[in-house]
Formats: sequence, C-alpha cells, structure tokens
Amino acid sequence: MKRSERLVAMTHYFLNNPKTLSSLPYFVEEYQAAKSSISEDIDIIDNMFRQMGIGELKTVAGAAGGVQYIPDISNDQATTIVEHLISQLEDPSRILPGGYVYMSDLLGHPTYIREIGQVFASAFEHSEIDYVVTVATKGIPLAYAVAQVIGVPVVIIRRDPKVTEGSTVSINYVSGSSRKIQTMVLAKRSIEEGSNVLIVDDFMKAGGTIQGMKSLMHEFNANVKGIGVLAEAEDEEEDRKVQDYISLIRVMEVDEIQQTIKVEKGNYFN
Amino acid sequence: MKRSERLVAMTHYFLNNPKTLSSLPYFVEEYQAAKSSISEDIDIIDNMFRQMGIGELKTVAGAAGGVQYIPDISNDQATTIVEHLISQLEDPSRILPGGYVYMSDLLGHPTYIREIGQVFASAFEHSEIDYVVTVATKGIPLAYAVAQVIGVPVVIIRRDPKVTEGSTVSINYVSGSSRKIQTMVLAKRSIEEGSNVLIVDDFMKAGGTIQGMKSLMHEFNANVKGIGVLAEAEDEEEDRKVQDYISLIRVMEVDEIQQTIKVEKGNYFN
Repeated sequence: MKRSERLVAMTHYFLNNPKTLSSLPYFVEEYQAAKSSISEDIDIIDNMFRQMGIGELKTVAGAAGGVQYIPDISNDQATTIVEHLISQLEDPSRILPGGYVYMSDLLGHPTYIREIGQVFASAFEHSEIDYVVTVATKGIPLAYAVAQVIGVPVVIIRRDPKVTEGSTVSINYVSGSSRKIQTMVLAKRSIEEGSNVLIVDDFMKAGGTIQGMKSLMHEFNANVKGIGVLAEAEDEEEDRKVQDYISLIRVMEVDEIQQTIKVEKGNYFN
Repeated sequence: MKRSERLVAMTHYFLNNPKTLSSLPYFVEEYQAAKSSISEDIDIIDNMFRQMGIGELKTVAGAAGGVQYIPDISNDQATTIVEHLISQLEDPSRILPGGYVYMSDLLGHPTYIREIGQVFASAFEHSEIDYVVTVATKGIPLAYAVAQVIGVPVVIIRRDPKVTEGSTVSINYVSGSSRKIQTMVLAKRSIEEGSNVLIVDDFMKAGGTIQGMKSLMHEFNANVKGIGVLAEAEDEEEDRKVQDYISLIRVMEVDEIQQTIKVEKGNYFN
C-alpha cells in the first residue's frame, strides 16, 4: 500500500475510533508498512487534524503505548457553530403558543447535531467519561452525537418503565417549572457501579430534570463528571437548582406579541 | 498544501458530507490546487474507499456536476456485523421475565449502532430519502445513525403531545401484539408535504407500531420508501401487518426455562 492510500485508510480509522489507543505495530501489521513510514503518516495526519481544527493524534509512549485521536474543536469554530444556530433560532416562525420555541428540526438535523456533539465533546474533553446519559426524548440525538465523538455508550433514562428494560431503578422528582411530580426510570444493568457519566439534555428551564438525573445517577453510584445543555432559559436563572453546567445557547426573551426571539451564547463562551 | 495533506483533509470532508454533491472548483478553491491534482486525489480516495468496503466517490458530469461520497458496505461486512450482534444477543443473561430480550446496551453502543446504521444505509442506498422517521424511544439512536450516514434529518414521532412541538397531527392505532389502542403524535411542521421517508425501528413484533407510523406518514402525504427494523420476532410472523420491510436479525425462540435464546439473520440476508 502506498503512502497516499495509507493516509486515506488511517484518516478513516482515526475518525471512526476516537479516543481508542492503537499501537504502532497494529498499523504496521494492518497496512504492511515499516514502523518509520507509519510514524511519518501519523505526523502528517496529526498536523492536518490540528490545521483543520478537529483535534489531534496523541502519542502515548511505553510498552502499552500507541496513538489515539483526541477530537477537539477550536473556540473559534465552536463560536461559529453556535452563532449559526442562534441565527436559526431567532426566526420568529419558531415561536409557539405560550412563548415556547420550536427546536425539533435543529435537534434532528444531521450537520447541526454532529457539530453540537463536537462542541460538547471538546468542552468535556478533559473528563474521563464512561457513558453519556440523557432523558427521553428530544435530547437523545444530541446525546448520541456526543457519545459518537468520544466513543462511549449512550444511556437513555425513560419516563415510564418498559418490560424490555428488565428490572429498573426509578426516582420521583419535582419538575422545577411546573412543580409537578415526575418519574424517571433506568434499567438496573445499564450503568456499572462507580462509572463516570456526562449528562446531556436539549433544554433546561429551572433545572428540575437535570437535578432528577443527578439523583438517579446517585442511585447508581455514578459520578457526574459534567452536565451539558444545548439551550437554557434565561428567565429561570435565579431559581435554578443546578449550577455546575455548560450551556451553548441562552434563550433571553420570547415575545409572542412582538413576535421576536432573543437568543445569546451560553455560559460556555463566558 | 501537499497531496498527502489534501488526502487527509478530503477524506475527512467526504466522510462528513455523505451524498453531498461538491463541484471540482470547490476543492480547487478550498485546497489551492490544480484541477488535475484534485482529480487524481479523488481517484485515490475513491479507490481506497472501495478497497475498504465503505462505499465510493461518484462523479456526476456536466455543469451542475461534481463528486459525491456514496456510503455503502459490502454484503460480507454486513454479514460480519450482524453475526457479531447475534453472538451478543444469544447471551442467556439477556433473557428478561416474560421471554423478552434485553437489547438497550447494544442500541446505545457507539460502534454497533454506527455499523447497524451503515448496513441500513446500504440496504436503502438506491432510494431517495428526505427523512429518517422513528418512534420514541429505543429506535432513536438507530434512526440517528442511519440519518448520519445518508445525511438527512431524523424525525421523531412521540407517544404523547408536548407543548414544545407546536401543532401536531396524531393518530390512534391498535398495537398488534397487545391489542391496545395507542397514540402517535408528530409536529405538523416536522415533514414537508410529498417527502420521501425511511421508517426505522429497533424491534417489530406483529408490526402494529410500524403500521401506525405508515398511517401517520400518510397523513403527511409522505411516501414511505422503505422500512428497516433491527430485530423482528419470528413467532409473530404469520399475523404480521407489514410485509415490505427489511430486518437484520430474527429472534427465533426465547426459552425462559432452558435459558436459551435462538437468533438468526433477518430477511435482508435471504
């Protein structure tokens, strides 16, 4: 295999196996090339990944060492992504009765959601994460996108128990904004004891749902290493039950009469 | 930029923009290279993608032409992926009371779910698809994985209306296996009239849920171009309401007393 061919194959390999530590002998064997050639290939890819702002190849020395792709995007790119989302969100046709904002299309869009996943993965890149946890329904594509970038499983908390989940742990919690008692359910076997988790959700008002997820994680003896929400509502900020979170977008004001939405960048950019 | 650098950048570009038609002048401009060099780069990448069995770069001639990445995986690879899933599924510790099989971990696994997404994308590669549609909850990561490969949005049907969806269309349908009346709800603005959709779900018993999704799509004047289910239950086959679907896995028998699960490849491999 020529260098040019190896570069295509190895670029594909690294992009598809984020955070996986692969030994040099693995590549030597796979592509039938000398160790020195593989090292040069890795340097070229590492350089380009950095130039493109998509992360880097990190070399770990020693017998158990190797090379791994650490996805990362620059602050500039994150800003561009989020500003683009904001311009989409400020479209007045998104205003729903009651001052809500329609976001489902953005949460299903293949490019936006992948980019948001990359921003969150970068935001939490220094945390060791075993699972990305979310609650049904709208946060799931987002959680999946984050999990894809960091290469860990997604765990989905449900609102209702289901027979196909086996034995479950459930908690009741008080929703922050509506003050209603709600339930969360998670299959007992879905998370190993002592795991590190990243909580991801699409929207946070008073933070009751996030607080509920934290409590549920406590029942699993899991360590919440981070909380990421795509959008937060600014007006609920004072009574917020959760403080240690990252938001990408802050919905400042939705005016149903004037038909205007005011959106700003979230606390990740502070 | 050197050829070696362009190859890394272009491989990343194509993998991230499946089915997007990009003109040669776009690459000439982006990478500041001669058209002939870009053409050679494209040949190298096309060749390697084919060798790796991940699809091909298709060149479209003419003024509005260009090149696009068509993801595809070979039958051999699809077989390997599904056989690996089957060996996981046959683990007796997955048997739940009532003869159900625990699958949530596989549906959240970053590699499995991406691979299953690739198999479905290949299965339906000749259909023009505008949206991948699924119903909450467990099918969502799967639908998202398929949508990522073919580069279209995911649309999520809900069981319950939510204020953040705006005005919705809902249908009632009879669940095939439990004979209970159930509801499906979808935001009116989520699908454009006359769109082509691919329905994806994780599990099919008698097919009532899939039938419900088909009816709901009918309300949106959408054309169902394909139906893909990860697993189907063999014992319900006779009364099945849906016939025109692809399944990757067939759960033949779950024996709670003997603690055995028998799983085979689905009709995609017939």
